[in-house]
Formats: sequence, structure tokens, C-alpha cells
Amino acid sequence: MGALWGGRFEKSVGSFTQAFGASLQVDKSMYSQDIKGSLAHARMLCEKGIISKADFDKIEVGLVEIENQIAQGRFQFDINDEDIHMAIEKTLIKDVGVAGARLHTGRSRNDQVATDTRLHAKDLLNELLAQNCALRSVIYAKACDNFDVIMPGYTHLQHAQPVLFSHHMLAYFWMFTRDFTRLVAAFDAADANPLGSAALAGTTYPLDRHMTTELLGFDHPIPNSMDAVSDRDYLLDLEYACSVSMMHLSRLCEEIILWSTTEFGFVTLSDSFATGSSIMPQKKNPDFAELTRGKMGRVVGDLVALLVTMKSLPLAYNKDLQECKEGAMDAAKTLHDCMVCMEGMIESMELHVPEMRKSAGKGFTAATDVADYLAKKGMPFRQAHEVVGELVLYCEKHHKGLEDLTLDEFKQANELFEADIVSALDMETIVAARKTYGGTGYEAVKVQMKEAEAALNADKEKIGYDETATPVYKQ
Amino acid sequence: MGALWGGRFEKSVGSFTQAFGASLQVDKSMYSQDIKGSLAHARMLCEKGIISKADFDKIEVGLVEIENQIAQGRFQFDINDEDIHMAIEKTLIKDVGVAGARLHTGRSRNDQVATDTRLHAKDLLNELLAQNCALRSVIYAKACDNFDVIMPGYTHLQHAQPVLFSHHMLAYFWMFTRDFTRLVAAFDAADANPLGSAALAGTTYPLDRHMTTELLGFDHPIPNSMDAVSDRDYLLDLEYACSVSMMHLSRLCEEIILWSTTEFGFVTLSDSFATGSSIMPQKKNPDFAELTRGKMGRVVGDLVALLVTMKSLPLAYNKDLQECKEGAMDAAKTLHDCMVCMEGMIESMELHVPEMRKSAGKGFTAATDVADYLAKKGMPFRQAHEVVGELVLYCEKHHKGLEDLTLDEFKQANELFEADIVSALDMETIVAARKTYGGTGYEAVKVQMKEAEAALNADKEKIGYDETATPVYKQ
Amino acid sequence: MGALWGGRFEKSVGSFTQAFGASLQVDKSMYSQDIKGSLAHARMLCEKGIISKADFDKIEVGLVEIENQIAQGRFQFDINDEDIHMAIEKTLIKDVGVAGARLHTGRSRNDQVATDTRLHAKDLLNELLAQNCALRSVIYAKACDNFDVIMPGYTHLQHAQPVLFSHHMLAYFWMFTRDFTRLVAAFDAADANPLGSAALAGTTYPLDRHMTTELLGFDHPIPNSMDAVSDRDYLLDLEYACSVSMMHLSRLCEEIILWSTTEFGFVTLSDSFATGSSIMPQKKNPDFAELTRGKMGRVVGDLVALLVTMKSLPLAYNKDLQECKEGAMDAAKTLHDCMVCMEGMIESMELHVPEMRKSAGKGFTAATDVADYLAKKGMPFRQAHEVVGELVLYCEKHHKGLEDLTLDEFKQANELFEADIVSALDMETIVAARKTYGGTGYEAVKVQMKEAEAALNADKEKIGYDETATPVYKQ
Amino acid sequence: MGALWGGRFEKSVGSFTQAFGASLQVDKSMYSQDIKGSLAHARMLCEKGIISKADFDKIEVGLVEIENQIAQGRFQFDINDEDIHMAIEKTLIKDVGVAGARLHTGRSRNDQVATDTRLHAKDLLNELLAQNCALRSVIYAKACDNFDVIMPGYTHLQHAQPVLFSHHMLAYFWMFTRDFTRLVAAFDAADANPLGSAALAGTTYPLDRHMTTELLGFDHPIPNSMDAVSDRDYLLDLEYACSVSMMHLSRLCEEIILWSTTEFGFVTLSDSFATGSSIMPQKKNPDFAELTRGKMGRVVGDLVALLVTMKSLPLAYNKDLQECKEGAMDAAKTLHDCMVCMEGMIESMELHVPEMRKSAGKGFTAATDVADYLAKKGMPFRQAHEVVGELVLYCEKHHKGLEDLTLDEFKQANELFEADIVSALDMETIVAARKTYGGTGYEAVKVQMKEAEAALNADKEKIGYDETATPVYKQ
Repeated sequence: MGALWGGRFEKSVGSFTQAFGASLQVDKSMYSQDIKGSLAHARMLCEKGIISKADFDKIEVGLVEIENQIAQGRFQFDINDEDIHMAIEKTLIKDVGVAGARLHTGRSRNDQVATDTRLHAKDLLNELLAQNCALRSVIYAKACDNFDVIMPGYTHLQHAQPVLFSHHMLAYFWMFTRDFTRLVAAFDAADANPLGSAALAGTTYPLDRHMTTELLGFDHPIPNSMDAVSDRDYLLDLEYACSVSMMHLSRLCEEIILWSTTEFGFVTLSDSFATGSSIMPQKKNPDFAELTRGKMGRVVGDLVALLVTMKSLPLAYNKDLQECKEGAMDAAKTLHDCMVCMEGMIESMELHVPEMRKSAGKGFTAATDVADYLAKKGMPFRQAHEVVGELVLYCEKHHKGLEDLTLDEFKQANELFEADIVSALDMETIVAARKTYGGTGYEAVKVQMKEAEAALNADKEKIGYDETATPVYKQ
Repeated sequence: MGALWGGRFEKSVGSFTQAFGASLQVDKSMYSQDIKGSLAHARMLCEKGIISKADFDKIEVGLVEIENQIAQGRFQFDINDEDIHMAIEKTLIKDVGVAGARLHTGRSRNDQVATDTRLHAKDLLNELLAQNCALRSVIYAKACDNFDVIMPGYTHLQHAQPVLFSHHMLAYFWMFTRDFTRLVAAFDAADANPLGSAALAGTTYPLDRHMTTELLGFDHPIPNSMDAVSDRDYLLDLEYACSVSMMHLSRLCEEIILWSTTEFGFVTLSDSFATGSSIMPQKKNPDFAELTRGKMGRVVGDLVALLVTMKSLPLAYNKDLQECKEGAMDAAKTLHDCMVCMEGMIESMELHVPEMRKSAGKGFTAATDVADYLAKKGMPFRQAHEVVGELVLYCEKHHKGLEDLTLDEFKQANELFEADIVSALDMETIVAARKTYGGTGYEAVKVQMKEAEAALNADKEKIGYDETATPVYKQ
Repeated sequence: MGALWGGRFEKSVGSFTQAFGASLQVDKSMYSQDIKGSLAHARMLCEKGIISKADFDKIEVGLVEIENQIAQGRFQFDINDEDIHMAIEKTLIKDVGVAGARLHTGRSRNDQVATDTRLHAKDLLNELLAQNCALRSVIYAKACDNFDVIMPGYTHLQHAQPVLFSHHMLAYFWMFTRDFTRLVAAFDAADANPLGSAALAGTTYPLDRHMTTELLGFDHPIPNSMDAVSDRDYLLDLEYACSVSMMHLSRLCEEIILWSTTEFGFVTLSDSFATGSSIMPQKKNPDFAELTRGKMGRVVGDLVALLVTMKSLPLAYNKDLQECKEGAMDAAKTLHDCMVCMEGMIESMELHVPEMRKSAGKGFTAATDVADYLAKKGMPFRQAHEVVGELVLYCEKHHKGLEDLTLDEFKQANELFEADIVSALDMETIVAARKTYGGTGYEAVKVQMKEAEAALNADKEKIGYDETATPVYKQ
Repeated sequence: MGALWGGRFEKSVGSFTQAFGASLQVDKSMYSQDIKGSLAHARMLCEKGIISKADFDKIEVGLVEIENQIAQGRFQFDINDEDIHMAIEKTLIKDVGVAGARLHTGRSRNDQVATDTRLHAKDLLNELLAQNCALRSVIYAKACDNFDVIMPGYTHLQHAQPVLFSHHMLAYFWMFTRDFTRLVAAFDAADANPLGSAALAGTTYPLDRHMTTELLGFDHPIPNSMDAVSDRDYLLDLEYACSVSMMHLSRLCEEIILWSTTEFGFVTLSDSFATGSSIMPQKKNPDFAELTRGKMGRVVGDLVALLVTMKSLPLAYNKDLQECKEGAMDAAKTLHDCMVCMEGMIESMELHVPEMRKSAGKGFTAATDVADYLAKKGMPFRQAHEVVGELVLYCEKHHKGLEDLTLDEFKQANELFEADIVSALDMETIVAARKTYGGTGYEAVKVQMKEAEAALNADKEKIGYDETATPVYKQ
């Protein structure tokens, strides 16, 4: 049996072009979605009297058998089948005869591919949503377990003001919370049924698209058949959500890499999340953080690739769309694995609390509070800022920290300074003083953690998160 | 007066680096947002007793005066002011004295910039949402006005089956409807208040962040100060929404360009949306469609630029973030103007209905219905497909259309053909037969148009769309 | 035997992280380059007396055996080996004992990976250069075979002036000629030897890097060891060259897709380079042109991915670099296969010469020559342009072509028109008149073809092109 | 006077679309290139007898006057002129009458734009080439001035082995040397003359394209008129060269930012290349390094934008191409300014030599040499690696450095250790031992510096670099 569309063709394509045009290597991972879609289509055809019950039964038996064969690795794939859809249908016809040849009634590969891809995208997104929650759980737990650890807060990678480590970690918690929202948006975009749109214009058979929508668990049927077969926005949405989340991971990786340096010395990674060097025996490299950071590139690449591919395509289906699946799968798998890796890395990362605390005091991190001290005594802030700036310059020239200055030296800088200036120099006091909502003060962070917990729980409930599952990185 | 941060510096930057580091040329377009943010901050400082009522009054008067000066082009910008925030604050201090120097109490440029950028992003998104509705209105109206025009439907740019022009246009309507959703998501992402996060850690002043949230019309205060000053996800969301919408526009432009060719001849653009050639007197070029298509590049470029810029940035604020504003403004303006242009182009585009109708019959577009004819007489679809494929090959060799075949010729191909085959060849009949939900049949498209109208009205209500406003392209 | 770097590690990585960190699936395709590099390194170590002749002999025998095993599919790959380098070295040590353990003397995986990747890149580029010549040969031949076929020349996809099909094809010839130059630049960038740079700083062993440079066929050793292990510019150059060439292919594909439409009808693709539809029996789709056009996305995505990955990496080697190989291989394979496909498509494409000729006359393509006619009679060109513009408008309103106008009508437009105006309306005359260098006139195109032939021959000679090889698409 | 192409148009475009379609704001910066091109075209027309000497004289006087007006800011730009070409030509016609209307003979805006853009690209590239040399000069000088400063060499941002600061800087020297090569390639790509290609097909006037090629300083005329008006590869080449160079700068910036941290403390930036904080008086931020790092995004964005814009454009000119100029100018200006900034930053950066030297010894950077010590005593390197790995673990547990171990402790690890092990622990000795070509040993780096100097001088000679010019950052 030749291609299923061969009637008007006199010459067949060669083996190179056959391989070039085939998507089987990529789309065979969607076999279960393809069979699910075919079963729903056949059941509906039967219910509407378009095919007989006897035919449906044969189709059902045949498809279930094929699914088992593929799942068990017994199915013989042939590159001449072009794609998973043809591979399955041809085998079905071979196995069950003319009934199998009736499966494609009122259906085109165009709506079939769109259906499979959407079902597959939803499955991928469900995995990403669950792993997002797993990662946030670990970040939240790490923040809880190290609630009052003080470390330097940075801007421009310069010491700025002391902050709580928990506060720092929660900043990432919120980034990944936003990613959850983006992943949900991608899921919602995928959750619409193209089946029944046929090649581009609908079909002359009295299909019931609402029935297949329900059978396949879609939210609603797509209201325009031409849009249905040519829309890939939901894959862009998926790749975009993955790109932003990878960007967040790249930032966290960068910090973990910095914190692991000899110079910072804030953390030690578990041996399970580090590797060595083939030449330098002392090396313990944060490979997994680097690799995750580097993998941001490929996911952004996937997003750009699809945007380029979609550019300027006229309606409706064009073969260019075949290119869209591989990148989406790659983006999803990459983000998933990187989140798994980060989950384990954070969970097993050892903090060096005394080093972090000690570093927090370096770099004149109390300077803002010294300026605030003056401002609270009535000096306009801009002027206080200038006074303290000069004081810092004085310290640098005399190799002192602010805490090393005598009251005389303070008074020389400005008469408003009194003995109580020492309290403005204490790290715990400085941290505690940032009480406003969202600040790094102990009380403020406690409030924030409650909100984080509530947000996480709400998201977990939304997706039916399984708390008992073993983390993937331990599997 | 030098830089507002100059206390510890002994040397000033040179004029080249001053210009290099300055963002004034870009962020001066955010002056009203900056002043709005400062007024809310000052009012809150006053309400909380942090500054006096007298000081607040001076600040208010001073800021309103500055806003007027800028709006009227009377304000003297100086590149040495680095950015709009410094430009305004320095002038305020010069104008109202020490009260002005108290405005920055408990605030940093870091949370100030974040606040201004979010207010500005919300303003841009509101304009985009309105213009999206305007564009969809015109597309919807064009579909209504030409409801029953028949044209060829294409896949692979080959004639596939006849479709209604209205159906074709509605495919774009739904694309832009999804864009509305993405723009709303970007708006929601922007709609959170960073003010009060200060440099990165919150502040020691008893600020009321909920009060500024209400005064500025934000949905909620951001729960983590470090995230607040370093998050630019909402700009990515904006640029992504713009990128996808530009992709949709590129597809529509491609079609308009095709339809305007001598070969297709389906439409004539208004002279107002076409230009000529400096050398070829006969030319009437679809420049605006081409330009819009080409501009997809710059918007995708803006998105990529920001993703690259954000990669690997450690917490919290880094100067790299200064780069984020220009691209977002460019993406928003580009999409806005392209939508305006498309609105006018569609509205004024003249259809050549007879040519479209005639073309619909070419390219054997009835072939699917001929196969369905056989399938409905009991032949499995796969076999019917083959019979018709061979029939098409026969026609091509004899330079005939399917409608030119005699019943004998049909019967020679297969005995199941009867005299009623002629009805399967009529374009109107073919179109009408696609009755299923989402199909191109007359009744199905009527149902679809009702849904489109309802969706559009719901979106317009959501944003308080002004139906009476003059279209921008007519202004 | 555990990892080759395990001395200081107490815990091993889990199976998930093992798989996550491994590059074996990707870099095992570089096995022959790895073995080639190891053989050169070992030979040099031996020549310099760093290892004994006996050890070298064992290493050589062992490596050759491993190469055979891999080539014949007998080699057992183990994901725990991380990468091809470790896989081979561990097997070597197992097979030949302590001699194998001496192979890595004075070498690090860092310079080893860099060497293998460069050797591999050069091999890929050689294939691309040969295929580039094959494609240009076919384009050139197609232009020769159809030298004087006239078709409409377009700007803005509007008929502009008649041109020769050969001229049109040669425009693509020159694009691909520029691509050859870019591929050569990428080759030259790859053609430098990093071996001997060790981890990052060079080594204490008296290696002879010029010897390995010669043995491996590199142009010169890289002069800085830190640069040597961290530079991936040559992969960017490769991906960039591929991106631009894919862009050129996307343009040619777009035209082939247009030319294959019912509307244009200029060409028919061979059945070997077209496919059908599962639902529409009449369809013959230019799938391969569409797929190639769509694949531009993935190659640009590969380029962006690597640029993102490289951003902000400090010296010297970072694990992020592991990500760079897959994209480069993908870009090279994609361009290669698309060029093969295009070669076959062009070669077998049937032209519809009469249709092209007829179309050339439509759309007032003689208008420029009519204006030139007036200008040559002394009217300033700008004024002539306006006169002819009005004439076109007159024709459109009266549904005439310029060739349908009477002399009276011409004279009504302007008195300068005489009977000889008819010659300005003849397509062959118009084409012939464009005699200037680079123009579409018959003589000018003949000159151009000579230059094209010379350029092609020079490039073929440069790379030692094998004229007798069977085209890949026929294999 | 209306548009210069208005003859066949009955309706004019509105003010919104006029502004939308206009490129004047962007291309007015190419006014001198436009006038240069027009003068060459007119001179050739005159020499070939196509226009009279009298007409040419008027054109020349008129164009020179316009150039002066624009240069002196006296020229009245009008958005209705669409672009700089129309703006100048309309004024010329107004000023010198019918002679001006003859300038456009045998020319189209299509070849005119292509000519101007190429001339402009060449000018931009010349500036980039000169600034590239200026930057490399400063890097080279910095390496010379600090030849023997020892610092830690990193891989994975972990201390690996000690290296010379000069060696580290030279790694960047070679990166920028490769960028020079890419910029030259872009220049060569731009250096071809499209003038005389007219709209797309050449012209009926007997133009001498070799004459304009010589007058304009192009290398050769472009051999195909359709390619000539639609090729923008040279702008891609420019943007690509800029992207890679920005990537290199981003890496150097990342290092400067790290080196400026409290934790690393290797360098202090000049006050001229740092800024402060509006809230934190102690801050001295490496803003210019951050901004340069961030600007890599916009340049990659420019490159992606143009690749997207070019995708799938059919021959010949399409209006989409109007989009190509702005991005190229932006990329060139960004790279230029960032190189200027980096030049000043490096030149004025203060090294903290003792801190760098001290840091070089931390992190067991001698471990490789200890393993080599064992290997040179006969132990296979893989085994030596394991012994030293365990020694490092021992040190870490006992909070010791390798240099703190007693000989007994060494011997406990392995009997091969002798008293001479201390020499393997000395930083200067370790550095000196890396003698191989390209290594960090003193002698090897001296050789490298000679090669660097020679390469720089050759490049300077190639472009006629002016050694006496004041650095831009000091202007």
C-alpha cells in the first residue's frame, strides 16, 4: 500500500525526500494522543450513525491493539509512513480491513494533527505545572528552615543593605509563581478542540464536535475551522512561558554559582549536584547550575524558531507547521528537567551561615540607615545622603568600616550624630527596621511567607498536586 | 548642583559616558507617570506624618508646575540629569527648596523606576486593548458586509475547497481575540505596586504601601521588595503579546499582498493605503501591508533583546535593566500603529467578488465533495479518495475541470456516479453543505458571527471602549 | 570504575542528574574526531618522550579497535560515561591498562572537547561547501537551459517590468555564492588548534602544539590557552552562515510556492517533490518548499540559542558550553538537507513558458519604457512619469492594456507620442533594451552567466569538488 | 508638489499613514551618502551624454547647497517627503528646475536606497574598525603594564590554576581580533555597487556602472540587478559582527563586575566609570559595565529583527526592506559606544595586585601541579588525580590549604611525595612551568604578546588607523 493520498501521483518521492519530509521521529511520541483522538472521532461517527457499530467495534479493538504494541515496543515503524497518523491508520486498515478505512471519514490530517498536538501540549503543561509546584515547595521550605539567616543584599552586585536569606529566596518563589500563571495561560490556550474542522472548511458529514470535545476533555470546540487547523499560538504560549521560567532559573543559577565561589563562600552544593575535573583534582564544579543557565539559550531559541516559522503564513494549513512540534517538546522537556535539577540542588544545598552573616556587614551596608538616622533628626534626605557619602570616602581612605568610627569622627562629619548611632550599625537592627509590607524585616517576611504558602496551596489545589509523589530527581 | 548621589565621588564622569549612561531621551516620555508616582508617595508620606503638610503642599505645587512645563514644552532638559527622575527632582528642589529634598524619603530610584515603568506599561496596554477592539470591529464589519462572498480556500497555497470570505476574515478575528487575552495578561502582570520597596530591602520609614497602591490604581502591592525592584516580566509579557499579534498581522498582510497581485486580483486597496514607484508609472504597491509585515521583525527583536538582557542577572536591581524600557515602548508603538493601519486598510479595501467567485471553482476544489459523494454511496473514504485522485489526473491531461466531465466520463471512473453528481460540483452547494459547528457553511458562519459579536462586545465592555471615538487613521 | 574525576567526591550523582548532565547522546557523533585527536596527542607525547613508544603502541591499537567497534555498532555506550570522551577513555583503560591511563597526560577535557568540536565543525562545513556548489550548479544549469524565457519581474509582488527567467534564477545564484563565502569564513574560524591548552592555562609537560596542529590538519595553534578552551565563535559563525543561507532558501521557496499556485501557474513541481492530501484528492502540495521555508526558523533559533548561552560567561571554560554542539549540528544538517532538496526540486521543476511569457505583459509592465520613450524625446523623466501614470489610470478605467491603446489615445495623453511607440510595448524589445551591466537584457545576462560560471568553477576548485558524485537526493 | 509618483493616484494618503510609511526620521542621517550617490550618478549621466553639461552643473550646485543646508541645520524637512531621497530631490527640482527633474533618469529609488545604505554601512564599519583597534590597543597596553601580575584562573568560576593577568586580558584581545575579521567581512560584503540596477531590471539608458563604481569607491558593480535591489546580507553581516562583539564585551563586563565586588576585590573602577545610588550613600556601582552587558540584548535583537524581516520575501524590492536600516544603525552605534566605554574603563581601572596574588593561592589551585608531580614520578595521571583529590578532601575537612600540609601528611597520602613537593605549591613556579605555546608561563606570554602586537599593527595599517586621534571617551 502506498501513501494514503497517492491517487493523482505518477511518481513517488525518493528515499532522501521521504526522510526529509517525514515527521515520524518527532511525532511518534504523540501516539497515545493520536489514538485517543481517533477513538473519540470513531465513537462520535458511530453515535451519529455515520459508521456502523460493527465498524466502530473493529476500529476500537484495532486501535487499542496498536497502542499496546507501541507502548510495548512491538510496533514496526516505517519511515515511509511519513508521520504517526499515517503509521497508525495504515496498520489499522491492514489489521481490521475496510472498517479501518472508514475511520478517516469527515476528518483530515490537518484537524487530526491539530488535535493531537493540543492534547500533547496539555499533557506537557500538566507535568510542568506539577514540577513548578514541587520547585516552589522546596524554595519555600529552604526559606522556612533558614528564616533568620542574614546575608548581604546586593544591587549592581555591590553590597547594598543586609537582607534575610529567606527574603532573598522568596523573591524567586514569586518569580516561579508568575511562571505558574503563564503555564496556566498556555494550558488554557491549548484547551480547545479543532477536531471536526477537516482540511480547512469543515465537512459535509453531520459531525458532532461538541461530543468529541467532551470525549477528549477539551473546554470548547474552536469556532472557526480555518483558524482551527492553522493556529499554533498555544505552542508559542508554551514556549514563551518556558523561556521566562528558564530566564528566572538562569538568574538563580547565576547566584548559586557566585555563592559557591571561593570568594563568596556562602554555600556548598551537595556532591550529588556537582562534578569534578578530569585534570584538576581539587575542582568541585557547579555543573548543573551552569548547564541550566546555559539551557536558557535553547528554550529562547525554540521560541524564536516558531515565531520565525509562523511569520507570513497565509491561511489555512501549510506544511511549515510541521516544524512546530519538536521545539515545543524540547522547550517543555528542558524546563521540566531544569526545574527537577534545581529542586534537588536547593534542597541539598548547605548554607554557610556565619560567612553570610559576616559578609552582610562588609561594604558599608549600614550607610542607608546612617543617612536615615540623620534624616529622622530633621536633615533633608538628600543632604544626609551627601554627609554619609563623604563619611564612606573617609572610611575607605582610612581602611575602616563604619562600625569602626568613633563618636568623635561621626560628630566631625556632622553634629547631629549622637551615641545612639551604634544601633544604626547593627545588622539585626537594620534588618528588623524594614517593617513595611514586602520589606526584609523579620515581621514583614513572616507575613510574606504566609502569603507565599497560601499561594502555593491554592495552585496545588488547582492542579490536584500529589504531595506523596517521590521527587523526580530521587527517582 | 551635581548628581544626587555624588557624596563619595571625587571625579565626575565625562560627557561621553554621561550621554552613554543617560536614559533621559527614552524615559522622558514617562514624565507624567513619574510625577503621578511622586505625588502619591508624597501624599502618603504626609498622611503618615513622615513629612509635614506644608512640605507636601510645596511638593504638590512644584510637581504640578513641572508637569505643566513639560507638557507645554517649556521644561529645560539637561543630559546631565541622567534620567527623568533626576531631572524632575532636581528642578523641584531648585523651585521649592528643602521640602523638595524630602520627597525622596523612604524611596529609591529603584522602586521609583519600577513604579513609573509599570504605570507607563499599563497606559500603553490600555491603548493597545482599545485599538485591538477597533481592528476587530472592522474585520467583523467587513465579514458582515460581504457575508456570502465565495472565494477559494487554500491549504499549502493550493486551491483546496471553496469558503466564504466572511469565514476567512473571521479566522483573523479569532486570532486577534486571543491577542486581546494576551494583552490583558500583560496588563495584569504590570498591575502591581513596587513603590515602598526602596533600594531592595524596604525601608525604615513607616510607609503605607497599601495607600500608594490605592492612590495609583494598582491592584495590589508587590509582596517582596527584592522582586519588586528587579522584576521586568510584565515588559516581557507586553513584548510577547505584541510579537504574537504582529505575527498574526504578518499573515493577514501576506494575504492582502497576494490578493492584490495581478495573478489573484481579489482586492484593490484604497489609494490611501498604497503608494507608487519613482520609476514605474503604473505601480500601485501595497506598501503599508509590506511595511507591517516587515515590522514583525522589530517586535520579535525587542522581545529577544529583553530576554537576553535579563539572562543571568543576580538580585536585585542591576543597571542592565535600564535597557528594558525602550524596547517595550517600541513594541507597543509598532503594534499600535500597525493595527491602526490595518484597520483603515481593511475598511477601505474593495473586493472583486466575481473574480473571487470564479477562482473558487478552479483547481478542482470540488474534489473532496466528489469523494464524499462516493463515500456516502458506501465506498470507504480511502478508496473514494483514490478514484477521485485519478479523475483529477485525467482532467489535467485533458485540460478539463471536473465540471466539464460528462456523466460517461464519470461512470468510466466509477459506476457509483449518477446524474446527481452535478450538485456535488456547485460551489454554493459545496459551501452550504459544511454545516457543522465552525465550518464554512452559511448557517454555521451565522452562528459563528453571533459568537464573534458577543466576544467583541464583552471585551469592549471590559475596557470601557469608546464607540464614538474617531479611528486613529482618520485623525 | 567510577567517574574519572571522583577522588574528592563522597557522594555520586543520581541517575536523573547523570542523564541531565550527560552529553553522550549528542557528542557520540563526534567519536571519530575524538579518536583522531587522541591519536595525534598520543603520537606527540611519544615523539616528545613524555610517554614511551610501547605505551603509544598500545594506545594506538586500543583506539583503532574502539573506533571500529563504534563504526560497526558493537560499542557499548553507558550513560554513566557522561560524554564520548569519557566513554572512549574508560574503555581504553579497561582494554589496554595503564598505558591508556597515560593518554590524558597534559590534556584536559576542556581542550579535548574544543579540539573535537573544531574538527567536527570543519567536517560539517566541508559537506556544506560541497552541497552549496551542487545547488549553484543546478541553478546555473536551469538558467542556461531556459535562457530566454520571459516572465514578469516584480517589486512589491506587483508586476514591474519583464525579465528573463535566467536573470531571476541568477539572483539566487549570487545569494548562494555569498553563502559560500560565509561558510568559508566559518571554516577558517574553526581551523585553529586548541589542543595543548589543557584546562585553561597550558601545561607543565613539554607538549609540541605545532606538531599536533600539523597532525590534525589545523592551520595554526591558538595563541592563548584561556581563549582556546572557551571560544565558540566558530560555531556562531557556522550557525550564522546557515541562518543567512536558510533565509535565501526561504525566499526561493516562497517564489516556488507562488509559482506553483493556480493563480500564477508558472511551474509544476515533479511528483517526487510534492505530496498529496489525506482528504482532498486533487491536491498536489509543494510540501518540500514549505518545509524548507519553515525550517529557517529552527536555524535562526539555533543561532539565537548559542548567542544567549554565551552571554556573560566569565573565563575560561564553563559547563554552559556543553549546550553549544547540538545546535550547530542541527543547523548544519538542516541547511544541508534543505540544499539537497532544493537541488532536486529545481532540477526537476517544469516551466510553463507560454504562461510566463503571457503574464509578463500584464500589469502595464511596459509603463517604464513608455515613460523612457517620452524622456528620450526630451521630457524630464519626472513629468513623463506623471503622463504615463495618468495613461495607466485611463487604461484601468477602460479595461485596456497599454498595447490596446490607439495612437490617438496616446496622442491625447501627450503630443510627443508617435507611431513608433509600439516598439516600446513589445516584451522582447523591452527586455533586450536593458543592456547595461547587470541588467536583464539578453547580452547583459550572457555576460553575467560567464561570470557566474567562473565564480562557481573557482569555488569548486577551492574545495576540490567532485563532479562525478551522485546528487544526494538521488541516493 | 505632491508625491513624485502620484500620476495614477486619485486619493492621497492620510497624515497617520504618511507618518507610518515615512522613513525620513531614520534615513535623514544618510543625507551625505545620498548626495554623494546622486552626484556620481549625475556626473556619469553627463559623461555618457544622457544629460547635458549645463544640467549637470545645475544639479551639482543644487546638491552641494542642499548638503550645506542640512549640515548646518537650515534644511526644512517635511514628513510628506517620505524619505531623504524624495526630500532632497524635491528641493533640488524646486531650486534648479527642470535640470533637477533629469537627475532621476535611469535610476529608481530601489537602486538609490541600496547605494546609500551601502555607502552608509561602509562608513559605520570604518568607525567600528578604528574603535576596535583603539580598544585592543588599551587591552594590550594594560596587559603590558601588568605583565607579571598573578591572579586565580577560573573554570566553572571555581579557582582552577594561577594565571597571569596579562594572559587573561590577552584572551579578550584575541576575541576582539576575531571581531575585526568579522567587521572586515561585513565591509567587503557592503563594498559592491548597486547603482544602475534601476527598479529591478536595469535600464534602457546607456549607463556606465563601472564609472559610478569608481566614483563612489566601490570594489565592483553588483552583477545582477534584481539581487542588487533586494540584497541586505551586508547589513546582516554588520549586525552579526556587532552581536558577537557585544557578546565578547558582555563576558568582559561580567568579569569586571565580579572583580569590582567586595568579595573579589581585584579592581577599583575610576570614578569616571562608575555611579552612585540615590538612596545608599556608600554605593559605587559599575554601571557602565552593566549597561554594556545589558546592551548585548538590543544588538542581538537587531540581528533577529532583520532575519525575521527578510524571511520569505520574493524578488525583487519589497517595502519590508525599509525596516532594515534602523536596526543596523542601532547595532553599529551601540557597539561603537560600548567599545569606547570599555576602552576608558580598562584604561583607568586600578588593579589590586596583592589581593589578586593572594587569591591565586586559594582554592587548591596547585592541585594539578601536585598531580603532575606524581605523574612525573611515574604514576599514571588518572591515579595521581585520584590521590590528590583525596588529599584535597582531607584538607577541606581539616581547614587547611595544600601549602599547610606537612611532608608526613603528604607521604601518608602517597609515598612518592618528597621534600621537593613545596616547589609544586609555589604560584610563581606553577605559572612559570606552563611554558608551552599559548600557555600562561612568563616566556610563553611574552611570545604571545609579540604576536598580539604584530596582529594589531597589521590591522591598524590595513585601515589607516590614526594613532594621534584623541580617544572618543575623552572628547
